[in-house]
Amino acid sequence: MATLILLRHGESTWNRENRFTGWTDVDLSPQGIHEAHKAAELLRDGGYAFSVAYTSVLKRAIRTLWIVMDDLDLMYVPVHRSWRLNEKGYGALQGLNKQETAEKYGADQVHLWRRAYDVRPPPLAWDDRRHPRFDPRYADIDPATLPATESLHDTLERVLPYWESHITEDLRRGKPVLVAAHGNSLRALVKHLDNVPDDEIAGLNIPTGYPLVYELDEDLKAVKHYYLGDPEEVAAAARGVARQAGPG
Amino acid sequence: MATLILLRHGESTWNRENRFTGWTDVDLSPQGIHEAHKAAELLRDGGYAFSVAYTSVLKRAIRTLWIVMDDLDLMYVPVHRSWRLNEKGYGALQGLNKQETAEKYGADQVHLWRRAYDVRPPPLAWDDRRHPRFDPRYADIDPATLPATESLHDTLERVLPYWESHITEDLRRGKPVLVAAHGNSLRALVKHLDNVPDDEIAGLNIPTGYPLVYELDEDLKAVKHYYLGDPEEVAAAARGVARQAGPG
Repeated sequence: MATLILLRHGESTWNRENRFTGWTDVDLSPQGIHEAHKAAELLRDGGYAFSVAYTSVLKRAIRTLWIVMDDLDLMYVPVHRSWRLNEKGYGALQGLNKQETAEKYGADQVHLWRRAYDVRPPPLAWDDRRHPRFDPRYADIDPATLPATESLHDTLERVLPYWESHITEDLRRGKPVLVAAHGNSLRALVKHLDNVPDDEIAGLNIPTGYPLVYELDEDLKAVKHYYLGDPEEVAAAARGVARQAGPG
Repeated sequence: MATLILLRHGESTWNRENRFTGWTDVDLSPQGIHEAHKAAELLRDGGYAFSVAYTSVLKRAIRTLWIVMDDLDLMYVPVHRSWRLNEKGYGALQGLNKQETAEKYGADQVHLWRRAYDVRPPPLAWDDRRHPRFDPRYADIDPATLPATESLHDTLERVLPYWESHITEDLRRGKPVLVAAHGNSLRALVKHLDNVPDDEIAGLNIPTGYPLVYELDEDLKAVKHYYLGDPEEVAAAARGVARQAGPG
């Protein structure tokens, strides 16, 4: 039996400004920092720990992890960062105001870009300075591999190889694992773990700041999963995410 | 040509209380946090960055690294933690007041325990709860490998295999490396890099909070090294360390 804890980072400065974020490396807002401390408290109160942690290369996820590690006195735990756990790439929408984008393209189109499994936002041009190939953190990665935009399906296709090659290795050794990541990289993992059909994933909302615990059997099949925290608060947080039309 | 940056963590809460620390996992003091920010400023002002970082499994080194990564906007850089970069094990002295210990055993004996290359402090008993085998962070390590006490020579013997197997690999690939660690694990590295004779290492003091930059040739021989920061301040800080009889 292995334990996997998924934690979605809380509010970022661009959430607050209602802008599309994707791979843009914005920091947590004060509210996001508060959510991370609260997540640590829920883990501590529940008696949960982890002996290895995974996160993206984006600071809002890394800082969430750091706060949890610090609060749980687990700063010594090994941490693996990977671009494969990044948020979905929002392409040319990154930096745009969500409301203005909805006014320009229509709310239905924006909803598809954000929630449909197989729809990609408009891509970043190859020479757009926002293209990840210009960012030194991706210097070791073949630029052709770096996405100019992504659907959730694309996100899942780059998350799963990392899940299989790295995270499952630790789980098979019986290590409790924490993954501190993003709305869509975690939705991709949950889709895989729970066999969520393509046409139902749009309705799946992961609230920020509430640890989601999976108990996995020897074959790493999900035996059960549950959120830590008051069930009504968790449900309200998930409804809040759904109302904002989800991560982005 | 490869760049290696060594950074000794600043003041810890037990430095402040004048207690032997060794492998005890005490945190930075406010002064130690200030020193870490100052080190980050020196790196930024000098135009230095790093693409991989190494540290110990002790939070005073890890927090120093976190502060530097945060201040330099390098939170995405991969970090490798290893017990092999820990401070020298101070055995049964850990937790004792340095002044009281000097009164009990004599200042000369304490000086030997702290500074002589081949002298070990009294060991922790196998059943002493301070023995590292009781600490979950070392659960994956053969307890027979974990030191009950260490001379600087012992420290060097466990630092160098990690240097050879991990850190040099990154340097050979041309990656600038930061090592955020401790007085004695860094003295061990410096002894190796500069071929310091055994009988001269007692006189080598590494000040806290001033990055020590090594430029290495293709064979990883030290071409030159220098501290960042005002030379007079660095020299004064090194004298301060010497006056306290060095790390511990």
